Amino acid sequence: MTKAIGYAANHSFSRLKPLEFERDDPKAGEVEIEVLFCGVCHSDIHQVKNEWGNTVYPCMPGHEVVGRVTRAGGSVTRHKVGDMVGVGCMIDSCRHCEPCREHEENYCEGPNSWLATYNGPMVPAAMSPEHTNTYGRDNTYGGYSTVIVVAEDFVLRIPPALKPEVAAPILCAGVTTYSPMKHWGVKPGHTVGIIGFGGLGDMAAKLAKAMGAEVTLFTRSEEKLAEAEKLGAKAVLSTDKTAVAALKNSFDFMLDTVPEKHDVNPYVAMLKRNATLAVVGALEPLAPVNNQERAMHRKSVAGSIIGSIAETQEVLDFCAEHGIGPDVQVIPIQQINHAYKEVEHGEVRFRYVIDLASLKQEQAA
Amino acid sequence: MTKAIGYAANHSFSRLKPLEFERDDPKAGEVEIEVLFCGVCHSDIHQVKNEWGNTVYPCMPGHEVVGRVTRAGGSVTRHKVGDMVGVGCMIDSCRHCEPCREHEENYCEGPNSWLATYNGPMVPAAMSPEHTNTYGRDNTYGGYSTVIVVAEDFVLRIPPALKPEVAAPILCAGVTTYSPMKHWGVKPGHTVGIIGFGGLGDMAAKLAKAMGAEVTLFTRSEEKLAEAEKLGAKAVLSTDKTAVAALKNSFDFMLDTVPEKHDVNPYVAMLKRNATLAVVGALEPLAPVNNQERAMHRKSVAGSIIGSIAETQEVLDFCAEHGIGPDVQVIPIQQINHAYKEVEHGEVRFRYVIDLASLKQEQAA
Repeated sequence: MTKAIGYAANHSFSRLKPLEFERDDPKAGEVEIEVLFCGVCHSDIHQVKNEWGNTVYPCMPGHEVVGRVTRAGGSVTRHKVGDMVGVGCMIDSCRHCEPCREHEENYCEGPNSWLATYNGPMVPAAMSPEHTNTYGRDNTYGGYSTVIVVAEDFVLRIPPALKPEVAAPILCAGVTTYSPMKHWGVKPGHTVGIIGFGGLGDMAAKLAKAMGAEVTLFTRSEEKLAEAEKLGAKAVLSTDKTAVAALKNSFDFMLDTVPEKHDVNPYVAMLKRNATLAVVGALEPLAPVNNQERAMHRKSVAGSIIGSIAETQEVLDFCAEHGIGPDVQVIPIQQINHAYKEVEHGEVRFRYVIDLASLKQEQAA
Repeated sequence: MTKAIGYAANHSFSRLKPLEFERDDPKAGEVEIEVLFCGVCHSDIHQVKNEWGNTVYPCMPGHEVVGRVTRAGGSVTRHKVGDMVGVGCMIDSCRHCEPCREHEENYCEGPNSWLATYNGPMVPAAMSPEHTNTYGRDNTYGGYSTVIVVAEDFVLRIPPALKPEVAAPILCAGVTTYSPMKHWGVKPGHTVGIIGFGGLGDMAAKLAKAMGAEVTLFTRSEEKLAEAEKLGAKAVLSTDKTAVAALKNSFDFMLDTVPEKHDVNPYVAMLKRNATLAVVGALEPLAPVNNQERAMHRKSVAGSIIGSIAETQEVLDFCAEHGIGPDVQVIPIQQINHAYKEVEHGEVRFRYVIDLASLKQEQAA
């Protein structure tokens, strides 16, 4: 056992505050990681506030984790002590179902689905078939903490070209946008529309550009238009009905990163024939979609969630190779409750990343 | 000009009644067809009642038309006088846009879209860009009539193995279900769910079986369960929550033929990872779809409308080859208003087909 400290919420309405706890020693096939940086994802806020109705408390978020390997259990071969590594949204999966065998662990169909880095298992034991809990854990604690222990197969290599604080958000925001663009075949010359210009939208636009696509960013915020153009993307106010109407049937692929219920009909109208709108931000019922527009051009509305471990490594390497990454603002963990309010208020264009040194100082003080 | 008679509605609330009118003589590239049979499609009722808000009156429905070529204009090469031929939902398209060039006329992106067999152009001149009307027509009259004149490229060959009254519904119900199954790659061994057991569901189940799929039919009607099983399909009451829950994540493809607003969430839940639910029945806003379920297994909800001319010929030939076709009930046109009520009341398992001989007798009387 290792003494650890993290920031956690005790109720849906409470602020995050320090919680002392213990991490298990790394078992065979596991590594222990000293957390250096952890990104702040909008979904952390949804989860803390129990907006998906499945939060177990205390809730210690954090699934964009970068740190150094401090110990390795027996038989570990992929990582060694001192390596700079990352942990994303998953720390395990059932490893037996068809998606797991096909290396799509993020679509694991085991009785508890994949094991979420925090608030896992995804399907709590009580809700899973025959009340099985294949992970034997009730509530995982994430990367808003000093140390984490993870199965080596779910630990990513951070390429040396990436700063650790920049690599962190790639582990969720990066792969969440990369995976659907790969799946639906974004390629050079394609027109790609990105809806929402927060942490996901920023990564999506940079990745799509690096893939050779022509990118259009849709945002509600007039102030962000110039920022979008700095990325080499066209920028459109999503409330500008004339501009939106002019883009009818013009995108080969659209990625919707808006993290709450909204109307996708204007975006469906902008898809080309046979094209797909992948909704990755909102995990809830969307407003009704008019099937006439969809049918008249054989359009699809799809969902996609994070990405596989292989895709996570791919997007880290892709970012290193193309010299891209999220815009981050590093904060001490003591500012986390303030940062949540900022994220909730609007689409924050940069990604907050917690510097865990601040927590170690607090622990030492 | 040829004197013609058909059944038409003058208002959204009126019954269909005889209307005398004139058809143009066939011009170069066109054929004149003596209509023998015309299928009754649920969409005829939507259109007559102006439920899509775009009906032009008088409205003379009918887009499942089978008859004999009586005259051919100059330069006609594909059909000759005496041939048994068919006309489906389209009688022309812009012929210049990308979908038309790629032989997907049913997704024509010309200023008036494809020219509908009745109530065409699909996009009325007044609503089309720059008020262009490339077809020079305001309101086409369909196959509830004695004669029709159509561009030969939009006229299908009826294989001798198909009875003309059986061939008629294949021109809409057949191709509407065949096209998405081809597009989304239904193949031997696939599990296919068909939602709704009316005219479309009946054709869809027979076609999917002939493609080698395992078919499950979902119906609200207990009386239809045995009928579904006669087709070699599994049959499930769509209101049976236990049976529906047991089928979670089990279909490679689902086709939704329900012709009105409804909740597709139970069907999305039954899709396998990466699978698609194609909605072909309801051309209107559907109930909100929960994106959590869709995202967690990367599922898609798509729309699809009818099929191309090439696919229409394909499905006619496929039905002839496999000895399948719709169950039809032939009626005289004088029963059309009664038939509409029957179709509206529930999912009629057979397809009503009008015998146009009844109209010629009325005309002669």
